[in-house]
Amino acid sequence: MIFKRKHLIGLEDVTPDEIEHILNTSSSFKTIFTRAVKKVPTLRGRTVVNLFFEASTRTRTSFELAAKRLSADVINFSVSTSSVVKGETLIDTAKTIEALECDMIVIRHSCSGVPLFLSKVLKSSIINAGDGMHEHPTQGLLDLFTIREKKGRIAGLKVVIVGDIAHSRVARSNIYGLTKMGANVVLVAPPTLIPKEIERLNIEVCNDLNKAIVDADVVYMLRIQLERQKRNLFPSLREYTILYGLDEEKLKLAKPDAIVMHPGPMNRGIEISPEVADSKQSVITEQVTNGIAVRMAVLYLLAGGSVDEIASYKRQSS
Amino acid sequence: MIFKRKHLIGLEDVTPDEIEHILNTSSSFKTIFTRAVKKVPTLRGRTVVNLFFEASTRTRTSFELAAKRLSADVINFSVSTSSVVKGETLIDTAKTIEALECDMIVIRHSCSGVPLFLSKVLKSSIINAGDGMHEHPTQGLLDLFTIREKKGRIAGLKVVIVGDIAHSRVARSNIYGLTKMGANVVLVAPPTLIPKEIERLNIEVCNDLNKAIVDADVVYMLRIQLERQKRNLFPSLREYTILYGLDEEKLKLAKPDAIVMHPGPMNRGIEISPEVADSKQSVITEQVTNGIAVRMAVLYLLAGGSVDEIASYKRQSS
Amino acid sequence: MIFKRKHLIGLEDVTPDEIEHILNTSSSFKTIFTRAVKKVPTLRGRTVVNLFFEASTRTRTSFELAAKRLSADVINFSVSTSSVVKGETLIDTAKTIEALECDMIVIRHSCSGVPLFLSKVLKSSIINAGDGMHEHPTQGLLDLFTIREKKGRIAGLKVVIVGDIAHSRVARSNIYGLTKMGANVVLVAPPTLIPKEIERLNIEVCNDLNKAIVDADVVYMLRIQLERQKRNLFPSLREYTILYGLDEEKLKLAKPDAIVMHPGPMNRGIEISPEVADSKQSVITEQVTNGIAVRMAVLYLLAGGSVDEIASYKRQSS
Repeated sequence: MIFKRKHLIGLEDVTPDEIEHILNTSSSFKTIFTRAVKKVPTLRGRTVVNLFFEASTRTRTSFELAAKRLSADVINFSVSTSSVVKGETLIDTAKTIEALECDMIVIRHSCSGVPLFLSKVLKSSIINAGDGMHEHPTQGLLDLFTIREKKGRIAGLKVVIVGDIAHSRVARSNIYGLTKMGANVVLVAPPTLIPKEIERLNIEVCNDLNKAIVDADVVYMLRIQLERQKRNLFPSLREYTILYGLDEEKLKLAKPDAIVMHPGPMNRGIEISPEVADSKQSVITEQVTNGIAVRMAVLYLLAGGSVDEIASYKRQSS
Repeated sequence: MIFKRKHLIGLEDVTPDEIEHILNTSSSFKTIFTRAVKKVPTLRGRTVVNLFFEASTRTRTSFELAAKRLSADVINFSVSTSSVVKGETLIDTAKTIEALECDMIVIRHSCSGVPLFLSKVLKSSIINAGDGMHEHPTQGLLDLFTIREKKGRIAGLKVVIVGDIAHSRVARSNIYGLTKMGANVVLVAPPTLIPKEIERLNIEVCNDLNKAIVDADVVYMLRIQLERQKRNLFPSLREYTILYGLDEEKLKLAKPDAIVMHPGPMNRGIEISPEVADSKQSVITEQVTNGIAVRMAVLYLLAGGSVDEIASYKRQSS
Repeated sequence: MIFKRKHLIGLEDVTPDEIEHILNTSSSFKTIFTRAVKKVPTLRGRTVVNLFFEASTRTRTSFELAAKRLSADVINFSVSTSSVVKGETLIDTAKTIEALECDMIVIRHSCSGVPLFLSKVLKSSIINAGDGMHEHPTQGLLDLFTIREKKGRIAGLKVVIVGDIAHSRVARSNIYGLTKMGANVVLVAPPTLIPKEIERLNIEVCNDLNKAIVDADVVYMLRIQLERQKRNLFPSLREYTILYGLDEEKLKLAKPDAIVMHPGPMNRGIEISPEVADSKQSVITEQVTNGIAVRMAVLYLLAGGSVDEIASYKRQSS
C-alpha cells in the first residue's frame, strides 16, 4: 500500500486500511527498540517542530524521541516563551515556523480545529498532538497498536471506555479508531459526562460500570480532570471513585485476560486503584513505549517513507 | 577574501566588503535549503550556546536551526532557569559557559553593550543576537540579504524605515548596514520616536509617511512596542495607525514593485494592515527563511570556514 | 579493572578503586576537548534523560554536553512543565520515562533518597545529580579530579571545606570522596551550620577559619544559601563574610600554592572576595570544564564502556 496522506488531523477521516498500514509500520519500528542503537537514518536533515500551545511533557517528549530516533532535527517551540505573548496571530506564528523550512509540524492547541486550519494554509505536514476536545489521533493509534499486540486482533473485542467522555479527545480518537477496526465499544460515565451527540455515532452507552464491564476484553480508564469538579459535573471525587473508579473487585467482572489501559498521567486512587494500575493486566507503561513506535511510523509515513525501506532496517536488526 | 573577524557585535564596525562576503556566503547556504537533506557537516563537534537573557523564541530558534544545519551541538541557556536568579554575576555566568568548552556564544541581553563586554573577556566567539537598544546585526544582515535577493542590488535604493526608531536595535543595525551598502535611507516616525542623535548619522528624517514613501523601493515597518504607549510616546494606537500604519492606500505611493518588510512579530492592524502583510509585495516570511541562511553564514565564517568548502557543498547539491 | 556498577547514587558506597578508575577515564575524555571535533561515537543511539525536579541550568547543561559529546540523544524533562503538576506520583513519572526506552536517567530532586529509590524500581541506570541534603556525587568526583590534576595526588593533602556543611550535598560527597582517597579534611563553619552527626565520620571540625586554613593545600568554599539567613542560622551576611568569607588576607595563611575551589554559582563579596575568585590560585572555572569530562566518564562507564575503547579515541586525537 502506498500511503499518500500528508497530514494526520484525526482518526475520523482515516480508513481502516490506512490504520492497518500505520500499525504494521509501527511494528517494524518497534523491533528497532531491542537494539543497542535505536536510531535509523530515515529523516536525517529533516526538521520536526513541536509547536505546543498547551504544556505536555509526555506527548512532546514522545514525539521528540520518535523524531530523534529517525535522525530528524527537533525544535521545541512552546507557547509561553513565544511571540504569542507579544500579540502575534496564530497564522503568523505558524507561517514563521514554516518559513524556517520545517518539514513537519506537530501541534497541540487548546482550541479544536487549529491543526485542520493550519493544514489548509501551510505547506508543511501537520500532525495533531491534541486539539481542544476534538481528537488526539496518535494516542488513538498507540492504543489500537497496544490492543492488537496484546490481543492479536481488534475486531470483535469488547472495549469499555470509562470516564469523562464528553471532554476527552482521547476518547473521541479511540471511538473512531476502535469502531473502524471492528471493536464493540461501550462508553461508561455519569450522564453529565456523556456528550449529547453520542447517538449519532451509534455506540452503546451505559451509566453502570458494574454492568458494562462484564466480559470486557479491554477496560480503558480515562483520566479525571480534577478541575472539572468545580463545575459540578459530578458530585464528589469520592462518589466518582466508588461508582466509576476501577478496582480489583470491578475488574473481576471483566474477562480474566482483560487488559487495563490509561492514557496517563493517572490519578491513583481516583479513577484507578493502585492495585489495578500495578497489576499484570495493566498495559499502561507499554502504551508509553508503543507511543514512540507509532509516532515514528506516523512521521515516517507522512514524510513519504516506503515500506521497503523499513524492511531493510528490520533485516539489519536481526 | 579571508574573513578574519571573531565576533559579530554590530554592523557599525563591519566593512562593506565584509558584509558583501557574508551575503555571498549566505547565498551559498541558501541553496542547501532546496535539498531534502539540509545539513552540512561543517561544524560537527563544535558547540554553540544560545545565551538568552531576554525571551525570544524566533531568534533563538533561527540560530538553533542554523547551528544544527551546520551539524553543531546547540545548548539553550535561558535566563529564567539559570544561576542569574541565584545572584551570580554576568561575568561569572559567562565564564562558566566558556568553561563548558563552547566554541560560540549567541547572546541576547536587555542591556546595550553586554555582547561587546563579553567579547573582551571571553575566548569564545560572541554573536550579538540583540542587546538593549543598541544593535541586532544578524537581523540587519538578513534584511540586506532579502533586499539584495529581491532587488538585485542595495546601492541606490530608497529604503523607508517606519516606526519606533528611537528604541529599535533593528532600525539601528539596518541603518548602519544600508548606508554602508549605498542605500538612501529615510526614517519616518512621530518626533517622539526619533532619537536625538540621529543628525550625527546624516540620514534623512521625515514625520510624514505619505511624503516619505513616494518612490520608495523598500518599505520597512518596525514593530510598535505596545508597552511604550503607557509612557505617552504617542497619543493613541488608533492615531498611530492612521498616520504611520502601512495600508494599501499608502503603499500605492511607493514604486509599484516596492517590497514590504517587517522583522516580526507583526501587530496586524496596527503598524501594518492585514492586506499589506499578505500581499505579493510582502517579503516578511522570506525574511524568516533568509535569517537561517545568514546565521549559518555568520556562524560558519566566525568559526573560520573557508569559501572553498562551501563551494564543494554547492556542487553536491547540484 | 572492569567497572560493574550500574548506578551512581553517592560516593559513600563507592570504593577508592572505583573512584580512581572514574578519574582515569575522565582524564582520557579530557584529552578529547583539545580537538576541534570534541565528539566520540560511544553512546550513539542511546538516550539520556535529564529528569530535574529542581531547576539547575549549570548541572543540567554539563550533563547534556557530556551526553552529546558521547553522541547520545538527550531529553530534558524538567518538572515545571511535567505531569507532576497534574498530580502524578513520582514512581509513575519515572516509570513513564523508563517506558520511553531511555538508557540512563540523570535525576535531581529536592528530597534526599529519590535517586536510590528509583534505582531499585527502574531498569535504567540512575545517576544522582543532587538529592536534597544527601549527595551530589559527580560534583564530588569533578572536585577530586581537579585536585588530582592540580596537585598530582589527593592522599595526604590538607583540604579545608568552609561554609554551610549542614545543608550541603556538595560537602557531603566531597567528604566521602576525599577521605576515601586519603586527604585530611577539615570542616569550617559556625556551629549552627555543622551537622550533629559529623562525629560519626571522624573528621576534624573547626569554627575558626583563620586557624583551620593554616597550611591548607585546598580551600573549598561552599556557596552560602542566602535564604537560610531568614531561619537565623547565622547572625548577618556581613558577620559571616568577616568570619568565614575567603579574602586575600586569610588565603595567605594557606600554603603558597594552595588552590581555591567553589562549586558555583558564587556570591562574590559574601563567601569569596572577587580578588580571590579571580586570582591565579582559583581553579573555579576549571572545575566546570572538568565537570564535563567526569560526567562523560560516568555515563560511559555506567553504560558498560571499556577502557580499551577510550584508548582508541586517545590515539585518534594524538
